[in-house]
Amino acid sequence: MALFTTRIAEAIRRNDSMLCVGLDPAFAKLPEKFRNAEKPFFEFNKAIVDATRDLVCCYKPQAAYYAGADRDDELRATIDYIHENAPDIPVILDVKRGDIGSTAEQYAKEAFERYRADAVTVNPYMGFDAVKPFLDFADKGVIILCRTSNPHSGDLQNLVADGIPLYQHVAKLVRDKWNYNGNAALVVGATYPEELRILREICPELPFLVPGVGAQGGDVKAVVTNGAVGGAVLMINSSRGILYAADPREAARRLRDEINLYR
Amino acid sequence: MALFTTRIAEAIRRNDSMLCVGLDPAFAKLPEKFRNAEKPFFEFNKAIVDATRDLVCCYKPQAAYYAGADRDDELRATIDYIHENAPDIPVILDVKRGDIGSTAEQYAKEAFERYRADAVTVNPYMGFDAVKPFLDFADKGVIILCRTSNPHSGDLQNLVADGIPLYQHVAKLVRDKWNYNGNAALVVGATYPEELRILREICPELPFLVPGVGAQGGDVKAVVTNGAVGGAVLMINSSRGILYAADPREAARRLRDEINLYR
Repeated sequence: MALFTTRIAEAIRRNDSMLCVGLDPAFAKLPEKFRNAEKPFFEFNKAIVDATRDLVCCYKPQAAYYAGADRDDELRATIDYIHENAPDIPVILDVKRGDIGSTAEQYAKEAFERYRADAVTVNPYMGFDAVKPFLDFADKGVIILCRTSNPHSGDLQNLVADGIPLYQHVAKLVRDKWNYNGNAALVVGATYPEELRILREICPELPFLVPGVGAQGGDVKAVVTNGAVGGAVLMINSSRGILYAADPREAARRLRDEINLYR
Repeated sequence: MALFTTRIAEAIRRNDSMLCVGLDPAFAKLPEKFRNAEKPFFEFNKAIVDATRDLVCCYKPQAAYYAGADRDDELRATIDYIHENAPDIPVILDVKRGDIGSTAEQYAKEAFERYRADAVTVNPYMGFDAVKPFLDFADKGVIILCRTSNPHSGDLQNLVADGIPLYQHVAKLVRDKWNYNGNAALVVGATYPEELRILREICPELPFLVPGVGAQGGDVKAVVTNGAVGGAVLMINSSRGILYAADPREAARRLRDEINLYR
């Protein structure tokens, strides 16, 4: 299996797209025909994948939506469906795990063996040994929370130590120490475009997963201008803005094209 | 339902115990009779609970062990069993989640509704809005990672901002802002007893969940002397040291009594 980072770069080129579609189904928001299906989340995701697979560089199911609804089997079925029907499109399982080494090994098994994801999001708060069991899967991507998109992300991430904020320490740790297999990436929220610009300077070569356009209010132009510099990889995620659009394919195409305007 | 913190204090008094038993079954380590059972993790946990329920103040299943082995149903069965057969013993679901608000709501549903846990562990890296959906369940406990027990926990947690390390910022945020429902607690590793002493000075009244005695090498005397000050609550976790002892009841009793020596 090729490296995740290689596969993402190829998918970006093939579909001319830096769009990541977040597969975060909420039962109450599904169109009625899916709510009445035997596997509503899976059937809904299948329709979204069928409508967008030539317009995206990756898919990102958010594990919480399946876990909270007791529909783990539909998460697995969704990932299997993508592997079988859109084999060139990598799947990022958004779980944001982080735990001591022996426990992180179990979470890595969950993401990469049970769910067969191509990449996973992880939390850096516990340090290197909490991330290493994921990084050791050299052909899988490991996308580490750096500057997150939510309103209070600065509570800790903006604390300044040795002259730079915590999130920049994370970026430097990843760049200098954690990327020993070349499979690391960062989560950088679209809602903080200036921080995204600084992070791109610090890490010119790391792929960034960028949530926060659409419902969270991030600006596409600022994200692309500040982040897609010198051929660097962005995976710009939209979930609600595409899943619940009147025409998801049209919404995906529009966002892909808007991103491409500024590349 | 009484507050988690009240229930823990009552369980400590009733069983004269600050021992938390971690229910982290690993298939290869189970005695053969359990490996051959239809629900090996559940049957094993049931035996551990039956052997220790008068010796502990809480149980703490680590979700990763069930998720990694695709045995979520046995996690739910284990928690149900404890609620039914040891109703005075609270259950902490160790998941260390943390995500943006709308996603954290799903994880809170997973922990408190799907699994019916009494408390949950969460990661503070993303800030207040990532923790609030858990804190809003006022009768549930929310145990926030502060100074974790693993070897590289200092990578971020020891970075000094405004004169104090990051983990102390977390402690002060929890004490001053996040404990608005009186249901917050901290994770403080037994492997860093000096930091535990400092944290007890900063937060004299917050309960501490203390992993890291036993297999990870934490010193019981230092933990209790530094942490169980002025009637403050400790939940001292042991997993492997009890689960795989020749006689789990005897191992639990020994550790409970060792803890009590220094209270």
